[in-house]
Amino acid sequence: MNDFLELSSDAQDLLFRQARTANSFTDEPVTDEQVAAIQDLVKFGPTAMNSQPLRIVLVRSDDARARLLKHMADGNRDKTAAAPLVAILAADTDFNEHLPTVFPHAEGAKDWFPDPVAREATARLNAGLQIGYFIMGVRAAGLAAGPMTGFDAEGIDEDLLAGTGYKTMVVVNIGHPGENAWFDRLPRLEHEQVVTAL
Amino acid sequence: MNDFLELSSDAQDLLFRQARTANSFTDEPVTDEQVAAIQDLVKFGPTAMNSQPLRIVLVRSDDARARLLKHMADGNRDKTAAAPLVAILAADTDFNEHLPTVFPHAEGAKDWFPDPVAREATARLNAGLQIGYFIMGVRAAGLAAGPMTGFDAEGIDEDLLAGTGYKTMVVVNIGHPGENAWFDRLPRLEHEQVVTAL
Repeated sequence: MNDFLELSSDAQDLLFRQARTANSFTDEPVTDEQVAAIQDLVKFGPTAMNSQPLRIVLVRSDDARARLLKHMADGNRDKTAAAPLVAILAADTDFNEHLPTVFPHAEGAKDWFPDPVAREATARLNAGLQIGYFIMGVRAAGLAAGPMTGFDAEGIDEDLLAGTGYKTMVVVNIGHPGENAWFDRLPRLEHEQVVTAL
Repeated sequence: MNDFLELSSDAQDLLFRQARTANSFTDEPVTDEQVAAIQDLVKFGPTAMNSQPLRIVLVRSDDARARLLKHMADGNRDKTAAAPLVAILAADTDFNEHLPTVFPHAEGAKDWFPDPVAREATARLNAGLQIGYFIMGVRAAGLAAGPMTGFDAEGIDEDLLAGTGYKTMVVVNIGHPGENAWFDRLPRLEHEQVVTAL
């Protein structure tokens, strides 16, 4: 199958084939410079109207980490407590405020989202794509990601993201994989279960 | 910044830095073998509970293409008519039916999603991440993607996806970029607008 891919085998392994979701990490820190390098790469991933609604909130202080842990599902709490870096990946429902800068040729685009429900759906859809890019970016930096969706999202939004229009979608642990960092690879769906034709 | 990335500069360019959303394509076809190679790579991207809710519906027949075009926004219709391959990227709201196979250790997980609203939200979140992976996969194959969200999603679901639990999220044109395939790169948000710390 690889004959059809231009991406090098090493890069395929780094991003997809060998990369794994990590459940434990070494103590080695993840620096702001590493996060900036990741973001400086993945910022180029496409979004509708170049809207870029993903916001990355790094949980750096002990206080913020303790508050976050209260909202995590039981099965995710210990690994979130121990990870070198934890980031809240959220959709900014006020993304449209930036359209005059990021989509300048569409005059008035800022006002095309008067319905808050539709605006949030647009924010979540495009931030979802960007979370996909971000996870690839973490792996591109030679780090392992441990993305999680088991948490009380409203609790995080009200406690840690109060005063913003951010809606938490994924919480991700980031670091160098520790001992027994992952389980066996789980099965993927068959091609015919995913790809069909009309 | 690149000093912090393990991914080769060539791969960074192919996937992010040089890659662009294409609005026109050459006539060169995109084969089922190419799509299979892309899917065989991106299927390894992580999803919650290994749920893999993304479904890729290739619009291969003239009849299906004509029906799809009726649901596209005016600004997306001509390029969707002309692209070598068009794919509907949809979230399968019945993804939980596959959990006994793809998440076998969690007995009864199939029945953890009785609320259709919550089930659809889970499907959309994880399929969104997978759309991000898929766009990277198209680029990994040396092809250009033209993802679009300007269409009548309910119209597509009812007309082309009737009888499935699929919900259309993105329609993507795929091919080799044609003449004047893209506009100038639009500005990205500043780092401080995206990444903050608590």
